[in-house]
Amino acid sequence: MIFYGYFRSSSAYRCRIAFNLKGVSPDFVPVHLRRGGGEQKQDAYRELNPQALVPALDTGESVLTQSLAIIEWLDETVPTPPLLPREAGLRARVRAFALAVACDIHPLQNLRVLDYLRTEFGQDQTALDAWCRRWIGDGLAACESLLVRGERRGDFCFGDAPGLADICLVPQLFAAERFGVDQTRFPRLKAIAEACASLPAFADARPAVQPDSEA
Amino acid sequence: MIFYGYFRSSSAYRCRIAFNLKGVSPDFVPVHLRRGGGEQKQDAYRELNPQALVPALDTGESVLTQSLAIIEWLDETVPTPPLLPREAGLRARVRAFALAVACDIHPLQNLRVLDYLRTEFGQDQTALDAWCRRWIGDGLAACESLLVRGERRGDFCFGDAPGLADICLVPQLFAAERFGVDQTRFPRLKAIAEACASLPAFADARPAVQPDSEA
Repeated sequence: MIFYGYFRSSSAYRCRIAFNLKGVSPDFVPVHLRRGGGEQKQDAYRELNPQALVPALDTGESVLTQSLAIIEWLDETVPTPPLLPREAGLRARVRAFALAVACDIHPLQNLRVLDYLRTEFGQDQTALDAWCRRWIGDGLAACESLLVRGERRGDFCFGDAPGLADICLVPQLFAAERFGVDQTRFPRLKAIAEACASLPAFADARPAVQPDSEA
Repeated sequence: MIFYGYFRSSSAYRCRIAFNLKGVSPDFVPVHLRRGGGEQKQDAYRELNPQALVPALDTGESVLTQSLAIIEWLDETVPTPPLLPREAGLRARVRAFALAVACDIHPLQNLRVLDYLRTEFGQDQTALDAWCRRWIGDGLAACESLLVRGERRGDFCFGDAPGLADICLVPQLFAAERFGVDQTRFPRLKAIAEACASLPAFADARPAVQPDSEA
């Protein structure tokens, strides 16, 4: 298998954690989102993923895109350890948490969106940082509430083992740090992130330790 | 079951189609996104959904949020007719198509985002419409390519019966129409939408025929 990603992409970061949790090690091909106007926009990559976004996973049979679809595929084809609970209602709550990050926070801080705000709307870096902090801050506050509302047990978002929710949370907290979001508002999320950080699957997926890192 | 939605919300529209395909009829409580500064932001609704977004589904046991999580839950608890194929690789492609709409198009045209662009960045309606057209246009062009790339058979996105991909596509094309996106670029998507429109499950889910419609 070949995994196409970028060290700092939140969605590639999610997939790396999932691969590590499952003990799967695809070959890695970096796609530099800044170099040459963005390698993800070049024809060679668009052939793989018409969306011109990372990540993509060439399974040998087909090319999969969208981090959550890749992670659900991985969970279905390599069932142990499970990334989703068995009971349908709880699965829905885990997926909702993941989607609250993947739909309602992350796309708004995406590079193409920030480029548009800069070039078309003439916004400077200060305005872009405030924009990112708004959506990340509101979004994570809602995520904190989603967990507080449930009867939480265990060190992770939904129980004693990490899963899809934690996989989405950790890269989003990394981005929150980058954009200067005050994280003292999210004590529960922070405690979960610390529990995750102690696991090799999460530690080895950090952007700073990837082969294409520029940190 | 109680479904909280809004006639024009794309994500509520997705759920309505899914309920209709499954023959499920939850009670409906409208949440007016404009009235009184937005009923979704009021405490009563935030108790249900801390994200202050529609839709939400009170199943009697818990409150589910995020349209894709609700639809996957429905598919798991009411398996017939299936909204996802059985084979893992194909499931991943259907989910990726759905997520390409739900993550990379829809959140950028969301009311709260347009409100921010208007109030904080001082953009007028013309600029907002261009913003929406950009993300919807690019996103649907990628969706068209995702389908063209696969060996498509049948009248729907992935085969002879509608499923999760079609459920996400149709409301997004409705929004594309609202924002004046040129749809002649997407002949395959348009043909699929026409096949969907002939089915009562889709026709009965249209915003214009909902009890809270202002059309």
